[in-house]
Amino acid sequence: MLNKKYVYLFPEGRKEMKSLLGGKGANLAEMTFIGLPVPPGLTITTEACIDYFNNKKELPQGLEEQLWDKLRIVEEKSGKKFGDINNPLLVSVRSGAVISMPGMMDTILNLGLNDETVLGLVANTQDERFALDCYRRFIQMFSDVVMGVEHYEFETILEKHKEKTGVTHDHQLSIQALKDIIREYKVIVKRVSGQDFPQDPSQQLILAVKAVFDSWDNPRAHVYRQINKISYDLGTAVNVQAMVFGNMGNTSGTGVAFTRNPSTGKKELYGEYLINAQGEDVVAGIRTPQPIKQLKNDLPGVYEEFVKVANLLEAHYKDMQDIEFTIEKEKLYLLQTRTGKRTTSAAIKIAVDMVDEGVISKEEAILRIEPGQLDQLLHPSIDPNAQLNVIAKGLPASPGAASGLVIFDADEAEVLGKEGKDVLLVRTETTPDDIHGIVAAKGVLTSRGGMTSHAAVVARGMGKPCICGCEELKIDYANQQVLIGNLVVKKGEILSIDGSTGQVILGKVPLVDPELSPSFQRLLVWADEIKALDVRANADNPEDSQKAREFGAKGIGLCRTEHMFMAQDRLPIVQEMILAENTEEREEALKKLLPVQQDDFYGILKAMEGYPVTIRLLDPPLHEFLPNIEELVVEIMELKHQGEEVEKIKEKENLLRKVRVLTEFNPMLGHRGCRLGITFPEIYRMQARAIFQATAQLIRDGYNVFPEVEIPLVIEANELNILRQEVEEVARSVQEEMGIEFEYTVGTMIELPRACVTAGEIAKHADFFSFGTNDLTQTTLGFSRDDAEGKFMQEYLDKKILQDNPFVVLDRDGVGKLIEVAVNGGRSVKSDLLIGICGEHGGEPSSIEFCHLRGLDFVSCSPYRVPIARLAAAQAQIKYPRK
Amino acid sequence: MLNKKYVYLFPEGRKEMKSLLGGKGANLAEMTFIGLPVPPGLTITTEACIDYFNNKKELPQGLEEQLWDKLRIVEEKSGKKFGDINNPLLVSVRSGAVISMPGMMDTILNLGLNDETVLGLVANTQDERFALDCYRRFIQMFSDVVMGVEHYEFETILEKHKEKTGVTHDHQLSIQALKDIIREYKVIVKRVSGQDFPQDPSQQLILAVKAVFDSWDNPRAHVYRQINKISYDLGTAVNVQAMVFGNMGNTSGTGVAFTRNPSTGKKELYGEYLINAQGEDVVAGIRTPQPIKQLKNDLPGVYEEFVKVANLLEAHYKDMQDIEFTIEKEKLYLLQTRTGKRTTSAAIKIAVDMVDEGVISKEEAILRIEPGQLDQLLHPSIDPNAQLNVIAKGLPASPGAASGLVIFDADEAEVLGKEGKDVLLVRTETTPDDIHGIVAAKGVLTSRGGMTSHAAVVARGMGKPCICGCEELKIDYANQQVLIGNLVVKKGEILSIDGSTGQVILGKVPLVDPELSPSFQRLLVWADEIKALDVRANADNPEDSQKAREFGAKGIGLCRTEHMFMAQDRLPIVQEMILAENTEEREEALKKLLPVQQDDFYGILKAMEGYPVTIRLLDPPLHEFLPNIEELVVEIMELKHQGEEVEKIKEKENLLRKVRVLTEFNPMLGHRGCRLGITFPEIYRMQARAIFQATAQLIRDGYNVFPEVEIPLVIEANELNILRQEVEEVARSVQEEMGIEFEYTVGTMIELPRACVTAGEIAKHADFFSFGTNDLTQTTLGFSRDDAEGKFMQEYLDKKILQDNPFVVLDRDGVGKLIEVAVNGGRSVKSDLLIGICGEHGGEPSSIEFCHLRGLDFVSCSPYRVPIARLAAAQAQIKYPRK
Repeated sequence: MLNKKYVYLFPEGRKEMKSLLGGKGANLAEMTFIGLPVPPGLTITTEACIDYFNNKKELPQGLEEQLWDKLRIVEEKSGKKFGDINNPLLVSVRSGAVISMPGMMDTILNLGLNDETVLGLVANTQDERFALDCYRRFIQMFSDVVMGVEHYEFETILEKHKEKTGVTHDHQLSIQALKDIIREYKVIVKRVSGQDFPQDPSQQLILAVKAVFDSWDNPRAHVYRQINKISYDLGTAVNVQAMVFGNMGNTSGTGVAFTRNPSTGKKELYGEYLINAQGEDVVAGIRTPQPIKQLKNDLPGVYEEFVKVANLLEAHYKDMQDIEFTIEKEKLYLLQTRTGKRTTSAAIKIAVDMVDEGVISKEEAILRIEPGQLDQLLHPSIDPNAQLNVIAKGLPASPGAASGLVIFDADEAEVLGKEGKDVLLVRTETTPDDIHGIVAAKGVLTSRGGMTSHAAVVARGMGKPCICGCEELKIDYANQQVLIGNLVVKKGEILSIDGSTGQVILGKVPLVDPELSPSFQRLLVWADEIKALDVRANADNPEDSQKAREFGAKGIGLCRTEHMFMAQDRLPIVQEMILAENTEEREEALKKLLPVQQDDFYGILKAMEGYPVTIRLLDPPLHEFLPNIEELVVEIMELKHQGEEVEKIKEKENLLRKVRVLTEFNPMLGHRGCRLGITFPEIYRMQARAIFQATAQLIRDGYNVFPEVEIPLVIEANELNILRQEVEEVARSVQEEMGIEFEYTVGTMIELPRACVTAGEIAKHADFFSFGTNDLTQTTLGFSRDDAEGKFMQEYLDKKILQDNPFVVLDRDGVGKLIEVAVNGGRSVKSDLLIGICGEHGGEPSSIEFCHLRGLDFVSCSPYRVPIARLAAAQAQIKYPRK
Repeated sequence: MLNKKYVYLFPEGRKEMKSLLGGKGANLAEMTFIGLPVPPGLTITTEACIDYFNNKKELPQGLEEQLWDKLRIVEEKSGKKFGDINNPLLVSVRSGAVISMPGMMDTILNLGLNDETVLGLVANTQDERFALDCYRRFIQMFSDVVMGVEHYEFETILEKHKEKTGVTHDHQLSIQALKDIIREYKVIVKRVSGQDFPQDPSQQLILAVKAVFDSWDNPRAHVYRQINKISYDLGTAVNVQAMVFGNMGNTSGTGVAFTRNPSTGKKELYGEYLINAQGEDVVAGIRTPQPIKQLKNDLPGVYEEFVKVANLLEAHYKDMQDIEFTIEKEKLYLLQTRTGKRTTSAAIKIAVDMVDEGVISKEEAILRIEPGQLDQLLHPSIDPNAQLNVIAKGLPASPGAASGLVIFDADEAEVLGKEGKDVLLVRTETTPDDIHGIVAAKGVLTSRGGMTSHAAVVARGMGKPCICGCEELKIDYANQQVLIGNLVVKKGEILSIDGSTGQVILGKVPLVDPELSPSFQRLLVWADEIKALDVRANADNPEDSQKAREFGAKGIGLCRTEHMFMAQDRLPIVQEMILAENTEEREEALKKLLPVQQDDFYGILKAMEGYPVTIRLLDPPLHEFLPNIEELVVEIMELKHQGEEVEKIKEKENLLRKVRVLTEFNPMLGHRGCRLGITFPEIYRMQARAIFQATAQLIRDGYNVFPEVEIPLVIEANELNILRQEVEEVARSVQEEMGIEFEYTVGTMIELPRACVTAGEIAKHADFFSFGTNDLTQTTLGFSRDDAEGKFMQEYLDKKILQDNPFVVLDRDGVGKLIEVAVNGGRSVKSDLLIGICGEHGGEPSSIEFCHLRGLDFVSCSPYRVPIARLAAAQAQIKYPRK
């Protein structure tokens, strides 16, 4: 058998080979191809990584041989020789996953140095200090990544020598100090790892490649992939590239720049650089870098060249680029280009601008926006009229606002976040090890690092507000407090941040509703032109209906009437109704509820004038409206102990008895939904009357309204048949009494497996179906959401038993199959049956795509998710066109 | 349009026309056809009844005309004329449903009498007293049935005159008294109904026909149909037949007889007659009749003729017949024949005997037994060694034994029965109005009436023990007590009855397990030869396993391990395990459980040697093993009020806290089943170890055992994949440790809709599927059984939303569809996948038929239902042969 081709020289690849070469490798190849100044190198394929893991972590057959062969060519191009004592080739070894996972995996620079080649580097560069510093860095990085010697072991030595020689910065260390440090580094490596630091460059390279492969499997990479839904099976490539040095004095440097502003989307070069530094210095956020425009002053020729390269790359890739570069003695080298991460509002502006610039089509613009990320634009920001106690200002690294308990530790943030607390993670800087804390926090605040520091990149990716480099903060981990001027903020006190302005505010802040930017509006209009699905909103009151309409909802897909029952002033009447001893008493209470329900419906129908409004009749079990048993028991015991009057105790005991009768073992599967309508027809009759009286009144008042009466929890056509007749009878009565004709329809939620498999029969009595995927998920999987998410869901996700939380992403294999059966059943009886979805999945992009694929007519979601749904629906149509 | 043919003369029908003519009409036609002495008559079809109800209770077009036409022919045959003053034809008007509903609907005799025709009857019969008595009876029956004048109104008048004239029996009333009574009857009819008693015979007939139709709709008929699963849509026919008179003196009489003993199945004429009586007198149980054999002495010629007729009818129908006859002046008339109701043990004996007699085939014999009725033979009877305090003896009207609270009122019996109390309904006699009380009672005891009285017939049909005609009982309704000699038994005290011997016993009696009669054994052996499904049992201990084996179970389909956890001596260890703070503590407790579980499995596997035993790993949520929250709260409050030590209270509070953490909103859908196995792998590992250690030990001890490890509540192939690997690992360890090889399989319950729709994937990791239809029904319908049956199920059945309780009869349209999907999915991956069912449906005949139709391999049910399942499986194969 021939060996696979595991190693590609850069000129052998192209940008389309991303899945084989990883993102970085493919783009290095592409840049090489279009003639940009890229240091020569090679890429070991992702396939090699996969084979490595399948081969018990042994490098696959043939890889080493190919590596050495290709490395010879890199040597030729660079004019240096790997391991050569006089003119050594040094290389960087970097991971390069198919989908970028910034900072998640390991990198080693300056590989190829040893006690002998370092002398060659000295001779070559005529800079002994530089060469020794490279060697020191290499030992430190390599030993950390490959040999498991912790970073702090080296930092301690470094700090000791800086102190001893009285210098503050690394680059101020003397040659002698560096020599001492290197010696001590080697001692510590031997002590900690039990092995000598390897002197053979070939051995170094092989170990480094394996270490990069291994880093694909490290815990933080796992977490990152889980959050970003990246498959473990992709593997990572490894890029081995000739080193260029940004740390060769003041005509050298390194930087990162975006071709457009990744925060706002504005068309401007945006980035940072550090003179006399290696690449990792910028990303790590240890020194605060200079804005890219400053380079025009420092090195005008290089700046001019960089601007040209940046424009060329953006035009070539037709998207905003994130470019890493190094300047070695005034020569520009490109080390990476990739599609730049950006805030969602930037993404929208860039996409819309690029359509205007004629670079991409509307469809491409729509496909460029990850609908889930719109969420961050659709949540409240700080009320501009609020009086803010601004106590500091940092870099506006990720937009949005958040208030939360100040917490200094990622683990603690995670614990409190899981308890439902709002947490603000406050740190000097964050590292990939803090990622779980960022996930759990409402926002991140750091005292160091720039706009491209770890905290900033990660927070933007997650759509969380973030302020970086807020140097006024003096974080005192030992005492778990932060000093801002004279102000002390202790752990657990509340701060707020505005990631759009960089303001840090004392205490909690009032928030206001978001508004859609003009670009966003235009994008959504394009989406509406394209999409096949209608988007409605779930709303239970006129305010939400109004908001939904502003966000582009074309109707209400779910108006839950029980929320109206819970209002403080209504609950007593509702309880009166429930505790009624007979139908007459119950009807008495219902009479009092009728006018208030009618008002509710009047407001909602009016807010949605011109569009359909699906109103679901009472759904939850009645005891949800009653006091808690345990509290009643305690209350009665206390009354008894206090020697309270017998009458009063009797009354409470009577109430307790009734609550007990209504209490259920599994309320989710109990006496609720249309089962209430069957056993207490007077309740549904009252609700139908309230709907129709509101409708008639609105028509009399000159409004066009379209109520759709929805019967919940149907399992059998007979239920719908009976209840439909009752609703129709009420409609006839109201039309007669008020002398007004109106249109309405009657349909059903499909939210139980039996409804799905008997949908054909049910459709005979239904004008519409609406999938209640929350309940359908609960029953199909046998998961009570309240119980599952607290008790075992996380373990199911961790163990990859389920790929996603089925309450968030519609479970296509299970719930989806039943939906398919129901759609086919319903449409086989009524080919034009209106079918929608109104569970929480109606606002989740992958679920919306599924609804599109299954031929549904509409999705309905919370008002704030309406824009997401519009975009996701358009994307689904672009990817899978429906006639 | 031509009118439908609504009226058939008897010679126009045949026994095959039952659905059109009803059972009675078809059999009268058949008897007429084969030349037996049947008084002439006609049948109005069931179709007429259906059209009547569809036509707003108007007789359908053409019916009356046809009726009068055919009646002319009946007049000719009888030589009398309807309404004729000199020679009047009198007719009976009787209901005749397709499926017999004894006593449920109305009958009118002697129709055609009025003030004038009664004189013709006098002239014709030369018996004025007889004619007047007929007229009196007619007014009474007609007014009760047609005009709504209650029975007691007439009884009061009758009793008054008997008292006045000093006679005890109706037939002793003088002519004058009868004339007075008739006059007073007409007055009371006018007063109560507001109308004169109709004198026009044609009007009488039309009203009577309508009344019989109406009686199809009466409440007791509804109850009867619901219990017996008879469709309302069948309607009833009406039979109009020339009257013959059993009350024309001592050479006349009336009776009912079975061609074989309906209680034991013995081949002997069995029945009763009354001299000088009309038919209703026997059925109503008002006078205690004579055994049929006595007729040989009273009227030997008639007896001889009757024996011939009885043999002829049984041979003709190839089944035991229930024959009604009337003797008018020594001439025998047949009024009805039908397949006789019988006890189940009689049914079995008759069927098996008839195979031996060469009358029917084995298959026919098997089809003759309603499997559900076997239940009554499979429940305990009175321990023959028990010391019984027998206080009275009555007729052994329906076999079986019962103990219960003495209750005199059907309504009260119903209320207490629903509360779960064991009730014995004790009455002088029962009427169709008592039917709900009989349903609710464990048994029935009456002081009057014979073996064919209402109580006897109904109780036999329901398989409930019954003693009739126990004349020693003096029932005192007013004081709610019964006197037996000097003994007073008050309401609510306990009596026992043995319906097989007629013994009434004071107090509760000990019961013993049933044994299968030789006929029953033979029938089941035939069934086993025929059936395609295997029958296993659900058993959780060696005793039940043994019993199941005796009843013919070929293995255990479900052994629930949690029942073992509930035992008094184990619960503390189980609680220790659950409340463990960490894995180590949990494993400590599990170590203690291991040997006891191993003992359990040893016993069960041994009892089922040679057959497979499916052992389900722990299934219920853990908090089921913990104390109740409410009780704990109360306990803690009390401890506090008593000023108990802080330590003790703390301990309880700690327990409460843990119970709260484990408590779930919807435990049915919570952290249970294999979810426990995923999150606490050590629990399943312990159970697997217990199973395999027991297996290895048994093999070492020389037994052949086949454990099947069953993983419950699977929704996703990944779960089974993970857990299967763990089970296999334990098996390997045990085999190694004990040096013994053994066979085992690993499979899964299919009990959630998602498992059904993803069965193909799941099957890849499963050696077998077993449908847990209890849970599958709960989730498919969204019905929590505990809640549904208490709260709304009855209303769903009453309103015919569901035809059957889906927890009793498998819901083919819903649950059945998912089962079909799962079977197809599983078999598409493994064509020989072993598939069974182990929910309660596994012992229900209609559900077993469904399993047969869907190609399952086995059903598993409670040990006592194994014979039912064997028979039902054979019937399914006979009706729907499977290769």
